[in-house]
Amino acid sequence: MAGGIGSRFWPMSTPECPKQFLDITGTGRTMIQQTFDRFDGLVDISRVWVVTAQKYAAIVARQLEGINPQHILLEPCMRNTAPCNAYAAWKIQAEDPEAVIFVAASDHLVTDPAEFRHVVARGFDFVRPGNRILTLGMRPTHPETGYGYIEQGEAVGDGIFRLASFREKPNLATAQQYLATGHYTWNSGMFLWTVGTIVSEIRQYAPEIAAQMDCIAPSFFTSAEPEALAEYFPQCPKISIDYAVMEKTRIASVLPAEFGWSDLGTWGSLRALSSRDADGNAVIGDGVKVIDSKGLMVRMPQGKQVVIQGLEDCIVAEHNGTLLICKLSDEQRIKEWHD
Amino acid sequence: MAGGIGSRFWPMSTPECPKQFLDITGTGRTMIQQTFDRFDGLVDISRVWVVTAQKYAAIVARQLEGINPQHILLEPCMRNTAPCNAYAAWKIQAEDPEAVIFVAASDHLVTDPAEFRHVVARGFDFVRPGNRILTLGMRPTHPETGYGYIEQGEAVGDGIFRLASFREKPNLATAQQYLATGHYTWNSGMFLWTVGTIVSEIRQYAPEIAAQMDCIAPSFFTSAEPEALAEYFPQCPKISIDYAVMEKTRIASVLPAEFGWSDLGTWGSLRALSSRDADGNAVIGDGVKVIDSKGLMVRMPQGKQVVIQGLEDCIVAEHNGTLLICKLSDEQRIKEWHD
Repeated sequence: MAGGIGSRFWPMSTPECPKQFLDITGTGRTMIQQTFDRFDGLVDISRVWVVTAQKYAAIVARQLEGINPQHILLEPCMRNTAPCNAYAAWKIQAEDPEAVIFVAASDHLVTDPAEFRHVVARGFDFVRPGNRILTLGMRPTHPETGYGYIEQGEAVGDGIFRLASFREKPNLATAQQYLATGHYTWNSGMFLWTVGTIVSEIRQYAPEIAAQMDCIAPSFFTSAEPEALAEYFPQCPKISIDYAVMEKTRIASVLPAEFGWSDLGTWGSLRALSSRDADGNAVIGDGVKVIDSKGLMVRMPQGKQVVIQGLEDCIVAEHNGTLLICKLSDEQRIKEWHD
Repeated sequence: MAGGIGSRFWPMSTPECPKQFLDITGTGRTMIQQTFDRFDGLVDISRVWVVTAQKYAAIVARQLEGINPQHILLEPCMRNTAPCNAYAAWKIQAEDPEAVIFVAASDHLVTDPAEFRHVVARGFDFVRPGNRILTLGMRPTHPETGYGYIEQGEAVGDGIFRLASFREKPNLATAQQYLATGHYTWNSGMFLWTVGTIVSEIRQYAPEIAAQMDCIAPSFFTSAEPEALAEYFPQCPKISIDYAVMEKTRIASVLPAEFGWSDLGTWGSLRALSSRDADGNAVIGDGVKVIDSKGLMVRMPQGKQVVIQGLEDCIVAEHNGTLLICKLSDEQRIKEWHD
């Protein structure tokens, strides 16, 4: 899934080139490239699919060299993750009715890819028999209030549990209770299923989406597809796969895992995952000098000369000539400050 | 005088293009151009002289269109203001022994040029008879600790006083006492004298400088001048005109004046003189959005998109791709942070 606009990561992330296509972490690989790299040895590039917006088609093809152009699915408009997953599932089914699917956002961070591959391989084994949906629950490292949580039920396999319930982003006290029980994990939005299972579940719980997909399907892989897509896809309701299917299905399980995951939703989450100096400053950019400062998240272009002195708990970020300086504690308001 | 390097105004001011050659105030004219403009109708461009460093020769000629190239005096090295004034005086005397001179830094700000011209005209009248040195004392608007002060003695003419003493930069309590007496003004470093008077005073109080000038003088306006200058000028002691002459001379007077002067020595002084919003933010740069912030001095390139949120009493300045963010209260340390 690569259709987001990453508005909280402004000014790095812009509608023209959002977060998933940027080297946010300063490693030399963009987020979508890192996401792709993560499957090295597990999934061949011939079986990678990307759902994105029409305007990002070229950038996806450029960043994921070797991807099958037929596998870059172009949404004509944003309809949240349920129509996105439906479109991918319907189309994958047309190519390979036996496919086992792993779904992930293209702009999340994983710092332990080896453990990630190990977990995903277990997940594939679990869902391959069919009639199973598996979500990866991230073992919480702290009482984060920026994520939804998943409540585990009884064990249904080796380290896998029945998915008892989804919980909205909690307040701090509730998050602390969740951690204390040991039965809650963060909802990462990573799912595994066979293509037959997810198509069947969408038909059952989101029939209005399934109906649009059935209208588009006859045109798949033909020159008529864009037109059919433009006609029917926008008629899908705007709804997440969590609401449309996951909260209703009776066949969902959760696999609690820990591989250094973050949705990298904000500058603060990047800071939390970056290496920091003794004063808690995370600095990306080789020309940055930080003096008398604490708790900063700094992201400047390579080579740019910068002196920052006397700041605390701030974001200082520049991209494409646009500069943001703000309090980390106000980062949820970043969206308000730009067009 | 245009030989300084303006190190406290980094990153705008750099050794390659220091403060006097920059449009610090965002008006479209550089500081040296504003200094020149200030004499409009009072001094013809044919009688303007600039003392600067060799590397700034071209930029002076470019910024002061129409200046006599013979009047751009090039110091081979920095020797503070006494050798600078001696060189100018010796050479002006060679061209016009009757000259009446006004000496000023090229990088100071005056916000009331009409009053400035009025004061300078009075000063010219006062010193024209000869054997008089006049300094312009700036009436203090606040107990500034960043300036030296001049103590007035008895009146010697219409609004002109004997110069009783120079005082080094005071602490706050002393500065407050100075203001309470009404007899102290800021030392602006602006002087008026006839060329004969200053040459005579330098001969008396700084004979080691006069000796070097006498060695250079035979080559004035010839192709041998640069060589003579390179040989003798560096042998001058590094000393200011204040120490070398003004504190010793017995013929100095002070004319207290008020024309919105600032040495514009620091970002803080620019802020104090700029128009500010209701929260005390002075902003130069048409792409800057300031939110939830107080007491800022912001200077960004035109057109650059910037959001600043949640800062107090800071400098945010960018020039030629180099960015500075620091506390205004620490601006005296700016020199330490760059090469």
